[in-house]
Parts: sequence; C-alpha cells; structure tokens
Amino acid sequence: MTPEEFRRRGREVVDWIASYMERVESLPVLSRAAPGDILHRLPAGPPDRGEPFESVLRDLDDIVLPGITHWQSPSFFAYFPANASGPAILGDLLCAGLGVQGMLWSTSPACTELEMRVLDWLVGMLGLPEAFLSTGQGGGVIQDTASSAALCALLAARERATNFASNARGCDGRLTAYASTQAHSSIEKGVRVAGLGTERLRLVEVDEEYAMRPERLAEAIDKDRAAGLVPCFAAATVGTTSSNAMDPLRALGEVCRARGVWFHVDGAMSGTAALCPEFRTFQDGLDLADSYCFNPHKWMFTNFDCDCFYVADRAALIRTLSILPEYLRNKATESGAVVDYRDWHVPLGRRFRALKLWLVIRHYGVEGLRHHVRRHVALAGEFAGWVRASAEFELAAPVPLNLVCFRHREGDDATRRTLDRANATGRMFLTHTKLGGRLTLRMSIAGTTTEERHVRAAWDTLREAAKP
Amino acid sequence: MTPEEFRRRGREVVDWIASYMERVESLPVLSRAAPGDILHRLPAGPPDRGEPFESVLRDLDDIVLPGITHWQSPSFFAYFPANASGPAILGDLLCAGLGVQGMLWSTSPACTELEMRVLDWLVGMLGLPEAFLSTGQGGGVIQDTASSAALCALLAARERATNFASNARGCDGRLTAYASTQAHSSIEKGVRVAGLGTERLRLVEVDEEYAMRPERLAEAIDKDRAAGLVPCFAAATVGTTSSNAMDPLRALGEVCRARGVWFHVDGAMSGTAALCPEFRTFQDGLDLADSYCFNPHKWMFTNFDCDCFYVADRAALIRTLSILPEYLRNKATESGAVVDYRDWHVPLGRRFRALKLWLVIRHYGVEGLRHHVRRHVALAGEFAGWVRASAEFELAAPVPLNLVCFRHREGDDATRRTLDRANATGRMFLTHTKLGGRLTLRMSIAGTTTEERHVRAAWDTLREAAKP
Repeated sequence: MTPEEFRRRGREVVDWIASYMERVESLPVLSRAAPGDILHRLPAGPPDRGEPFESVLRDLDDIVLPGITHWQSPSFFAYFPANASGPAILGDLLCAGLGVQGMLWSTSPACTELEMRVLDWLVGMLGLPEAFLSTGQGGGVIQDTASSAALCALLAARERATNFASNARGCDGRLTAYASTQAHSSIEKGVRVAGLGTERLRLVEVDEEYAMRPERLAEAIDKDRAAGLVPCFAAATVGTTSSNAMDPLRALGEVCRARGVWFHVDGAMSGTAALCPEFRTFQDGLDLADSYCFNPHKWMFTNFDCDCFYVADRAALIRTLSILPEYLRNKATESGAVVDYRDWHVPLGRRFRALKLWLVIRHYGVEGLRHHVRRHVALAGEFAGWVRASAEFELAAPVPLNLVCFRHREGDDATRRTLDRANATGRMFLTHTKLGGRLTLRMSIAGTTTEERHVRAAWDTLREAAKP
Repeated sequence: MTPEEFRRRGREVVDWIASYMERVESLPVLSRAAPGDILHRLPAGPPDRGEPFESVLRDLDDIVLPGITHWQSPSFFAYFPANASGPAILGDLLCAGLGVQGMLWSTSPACTELEMRVLDWLVGMLGLPEAFLSTGQGGGVIQDTASSAALCALLAARERATNFASNARGCDGRLTAYASTQAHSSIEKGVRVAGLGTERLRLVEVDEEYAMRPERLAEAIDKDRAAGLVPCFAAATVGTTSSNAMDPLRALGEVCRARGVWFHVDGAMSGTAALCPEFRTFQDGLDLADSYCFNPHKWMFTNFDCDCFYVADRAALIRTLSILPEYLRNKATESGAVVDYRDWHVPLGRRFRALKLWLVIRHYGVEGLRHHVRRHVALAGEFAGWVRASAEFELAAPVPLNLVCFRHREGDDATRRTLDRANATGRMFLTHTKLGGRLTLRMSIAGTTTEERHVRAAWDTLREAAKP
C-alpha cells in the first residue's frame, strides 16, 4: 500500500470510526451473536490474491459488527470499563504508524523517554508518593494489564525475599503470598505462574465492607514465618473488582514493612479517581508500597492496553527481570545512563504506548480529566440514591466512587431475572458478582460518553426488568 | 473529542503518517539523540487545560521524531524487523476505534471468532500441522510476543509433567528444561519466571551450523531423569536470533516424544517464510511439537504486537491458565460451546489484534505475501554473494533465508569499526552478535519497503566503513 493509497484508505477508516462513534449508542450493547455465528460467516480459507479494501469495510459492517459487544457504548455498565477517546485512538494510530519497537532505549530513545516523562507526570497528577518518580530510585513503566504488573511485582518480591536466588535456584515451596478474599483473580494466577503454588497463597479475611483486615494479614504472615515459611508478597486493592472496596493501605503497609514483605497495591480501576484531590483518601499509606499499578485503559480515556506500573526501588525489579544477550548489547545500555524498559516486564518487545497517554493528557488537560471523573462519581451517587429510595432494590456495598453494587430485595432469583432481562433489551449491559454469598449487580459508570440520560434510561430498564 | 472533531483530527494524523512514510527513507535510521535529549525537551509537568491538537503534531515533528530509530526505514537491517504495512496500521486503528476488550467470548464474539478463523487460515497458509487447527484438539491464539508464548508453553509443560499439580503446589526444584546455547534469551527468562530456576535449564550444545544436537538433548534429558529430576520442556528454534540456525525438528521432536517432554518450537522470525512451499523444509517434524509460535509482527507486515501461538492440545493449556471468578461467569462460558481466550495467556484483558492480521492477509492475499518473502530471501542471497566475493568480509554462518551473518576478515576490531562507522552514517542500521566467540554483523532483510537499491547502498556503506 503506497503512502498515497494509505492516505485515501486511512480517511475511509477514520470516517468509519467517526460514524461508529455516532451510531454506537443505537446498537444493542451486548452482542446477540450465538456461538459460531461469526466464525461461519468468515470464509474457510484466505484469499489467494489481494482483495479490494472496500470489501473489508463492508465485512466489518456485515460480519464483525453484529459480533461486537460495544464497550464504547454510553450504556455499557459491565465489568470495569475499557474506555477510549478520540485522542487515545489517534495516539494508538501514531504508535502503529511510527512502528517502533522500544525494547531498548537505543531502539527509539523517544519511546522510552516520553514514557518516563508521562509516568512521572502521573505521579504528580494523582498525588502518588515521590518514591515512584524516575528522578529518584523508583520509576514507572507501561504494562499491558494489571495482571502482568502484579506478576512482575511478585517476581521482584520473590527475588528480594530469597536474596536474589529464586531466579537461579527456582522456587522451593517455602515462599508465601497474601491477598484478601476479594482480590482480583490475577493475583492467584500470578502465584501459579511464578511457581509459588496456590497452596501458598493466603486469602485474608475482609471486614463487613469487604476490605482486608490488617490484623488478619499480620497473623497470617507471622504464622507462616513461625512455621519456617518465607512470606514474600502481599497485594492490597484499592477498588476491588466485586465491590470497589478499599483495603486500608496504611495499616496493611505497616504490617508488611515491619515484616519485610513486599507490599503491592492494585488500583487498576479506582486509581484514576486520584486525579481529584477530594478522592485521594484511599491512597493514604501508599507511601509504604513497594509497587503500585492503575489502568488508564479503564477510567482515563486511554484505550486498552495501558497499565501504569510503579516501583519504589527500580533496581530490584530490573535485577529480577534483566537478561542481556550479546545481540542486545549496545553502548547506551553499557553506559548505564539510560533506562531499557525490556528489563521492566516479561515480554522483550514493546510498543510506543506512551503516545496515547500523552495525547490524552494534552487533549483533556488535568482539569478536563478531573471534570469527567467527578461527573461519573456524581452519576454513581445519583444512581445509588435511586436504589436506596426504591421499593425493588437495595444497595449491597458502600459506593466510594463510581461502582454501585445492588440487588433485588426479593433475593437471587429476582436479581438474576433482572440481570437477564435488562441485558436482553440490548439497551444496556451490566454484569454481576457475589457479595456475602448473594448475587449482586454491578453498575459501573465510567464511559467516556455516558451522560445522565443513559444512567437514567438504564435505571428505567432495570426497574422494568425487576417486575415479577 | 466529538465524532466530527475526530474525523478532522484523524485525517490530519493519517496525513502525518502518510507523509512520514514518504520521508522516512531520508531520515537517519538510528536516532542520534543522546540520553536525556528527549526527556529534557518535554515539559516537567502536564498541562492544566487541554491543548490544541496542532501543538501535539508539532511536537511530534520537533521533539519525538529526532528520538526515533526508524524501524520502518527501508534501510533498517538491525535485530529482526518489526515491519508494518498500510493495512496493518489501519487494522490497528480499527482495533482502537472499536475499543473492545475480548477477554471472554461474550465480551465480543467477533474478537474471538475472527481470531480463531484467521489463525486457522495461517495453519493452511504456512503448511503447519493440522493438529494446530481449532477444529480439532488444538488451536491458535495471538500473544504479544514470542517471550510470552514460550512462557505459556513452559507453564503448560510444567503442569503436564506434574499431573497438573505445580499450579497448586508450586515448583519443587526438580523440574528441568532444555534449549540450545543459541536459543533466545526469552527461554531463560521464562524458566526464571515460572519458578524452575536457571540452574535447571540445560543449554544443549550446537553443531557447526549452530543447530541443536539431538543426541546431546537426549543425553541431557536421560541424565536428569536418572538423577531423579523431572524433565518437562524443550524449546527448539527455527531461525535462531544470532544466525537463523535451524534446529532439526524431527530428530529433536522424536527425542522429546519418546521421553514425554513438552516440545515447543519458536519460529518467531523464520516462520513467515513457510508461506512459500519451497522454504518449508525447516518445518519438517513440526508435527511432533506440542506448541509453536511465529511472529507476523516480524516478517508478515503486521505491526507489533502480534505473535501467533499454537498448541496441539488446547485442553492442557487452558487447564493450566484458567481461573474463573464469579464476576467473569457467563452463560456462554458455562455452555462449553465457546473459546474464552483469557485462558490462553497470562493477562486477562486483550485487544482485537486479529483485525490487523485479517486486513493484512486480505490486502496482500497469500500470493502477495509470498512475493515479498521471496523478494527478501533473494536480496539476502544477493548480499551473501557480495560478501563471499569480497576482499574485506566473510560469511560467518549459512544463509538459509533472509539473515546474512558476516564479519571483517581482519577480526573483531575491524568488524566493530565497520559496525560503528556504518551506523554513524545514518544511512543504514544493522546490529551484531557473537558466533563462535567472534564478533559478527547481522544483515536482516525484511523491510516492507526495502528494495534492491537499499541493500546495495548498505553494501557500499559497509565497504566504505570497512576500510582501515
């Protein structure tokens, strides 16, 4: 494809996306495709000769779109969002167009240095501890997801707890890890991947607001140590997936510090709220964390994938993940004057993901980002008020930010029926969890284009669906 | 950003990229930035208010471009390529525009089913074993990199060798893994991450063409087993990073099969060559592999990241990586009728990367892709001929496909001098390795827009640089 043809086709694709943005609100949010529907409409084999570009755009409308669950719909309230925005999409487009692979500083200095700068910006924007700044002993890096970030934190913790011997000698069954019963499944996955084994993961009890109990964490660590085990890693969550519960960071951090356990904090969803000073209370104690992550690809209008992972001591992380074969050696690396991000995560290669974050921050400005976060939190507060005042529903957990957990007063069957009926309308999409053993609906409000009318329409749909 | 504004800004970005494509040939291939150059030109803090889009495009030219090492330059011959193309860039743009997160089938059926279909297409296109088809017991998935694919293969191997107990109980120091001394560093990184420990990784001796010796692999496995260890994983490479050496898959696969060891094959770079039936000989024996990966983001004109990872027994992989918390439960998953790709890799979330692969295959057609691969192999053959006939240089390894390894006849100092001088011209960029203890230059020819004139110019530059 020549540059001239790219120019033409590129405009067509931009127009297609702009038109998608305009009509996404009118499409059924949850795809109605049955298993195999899309598969069977795609040819069994590839074309021998190149096809005209028009046919691709046609198939996009005819075959692909019916198989899309519209994460960018203003009526998508499921899971946690993966919200996008115009500047983020264009940042990703520039990333693809430049096509650089930033594994080493030298393979594109701008890819590394822009990432360092933007991640330092975020430390200030979110009021994060200064220890995470690249200008000191720490630093930030973009990972694909919070799952990968947690794995890297766990690996560094494993190494630190074994005097940097676990990479060489492997795990020996004595390392233990800690998270609350409400922690994300990625913590358990990481514990499996890293060779500790889930039998060595302690799921610490939570309080009535689903937040980890610091005294229980302390007991679990002390008990393991007394038994000759090696506690190495504890993960707290600010904004759990099920209910947005906030683990008490300061108390947990003190437990970990006193015991030499790596303290990782996962703020994947709620971390963005810290853009607004009035929402930062959940970060109290984050200065005790060895590592932290949050996902701009959830609530900061930066399309997936973009997880920001910070460490207070980058040397520990780099020592854990660094391998330097001959074919990657270069003068800049040997000078010690540069950051080579390949040593900050599991994959070797990496995209120029900082571009989209840079574009988002510059387009919105800090105040613009805050405006949307406040808007979402206010909408969630409004929705929670409707629930509280309603005859059909009740709140199932506190609403610290933008996630409302609620259920039908008549029990799980009625809640399930409400969920299924509401999603079947195509006018909204929300998902469920279990809290205290009871089926619970999660209304997650963070869509870039979600306005009050969408939340109100969802409420009407839910009330209709809640009828016997 | 409204759809209307996106339309306007999108066109500007498309134009910027088209113009970048037109001028990239004239830019110094290797960035001349010194450490900190880019960093210090970026503001210390983010803007409070949103900035006009024009200023971003201006900074892209003024600040970012001087810090770019141009992977898409036709004179980029370093590492292995990360080549892109118009349709791939537009596929990535569509991925960003749709903004779906395909962790589950139900979170966008098209994201999963298009990926299944396109990865099945590739089985046929490359003449891969039918065991890798999703219509049987196997299947393919897109991972970010070959590093991540190797890690997943290793994890499944670890689980299989322990009767699916290592996830629960952790590693116990008895599991061993095997790769040649020429294997990519990602294998060692994976062995560390997975908790086996590098002391349990056996680097098997290679022959004079840098290919793994099957009898040495057999000896190593048998010796470990006799010592009470548990051999679980062997990685072969078709197209090693240093010299494109081809490990003999059939003999190695037979060694592994006979001993119940998971046989993983890494064809990250060279796998694409199998588009052409005449280059498929290196795949002989791939039917003995438990897993295989190759990177369309290297040589198939599909921009980073896009690694295709295949397994012959998907049940083993899924059982290894699956975790299903309540908040991800859904009817489609419970029906067992769908693939949930979150269980095929470490991260939970995933982008719609199949789109770019689909666009590339449809744009070029199988014949179009073959044309470019043949072109690159022919150019490498031509370059190798020049080396062979030259007074200054000699070949350092066989040239099976598109990588030419060569060195100055006068030794490492002269080779180093040649490398540094050639790269300093800005007219080309190549990198080095060590083969047989000697410094070796690697000329990797696979740029989407690389033509004979670029290869010829590089040769002239190298000869000039080789002078005393």
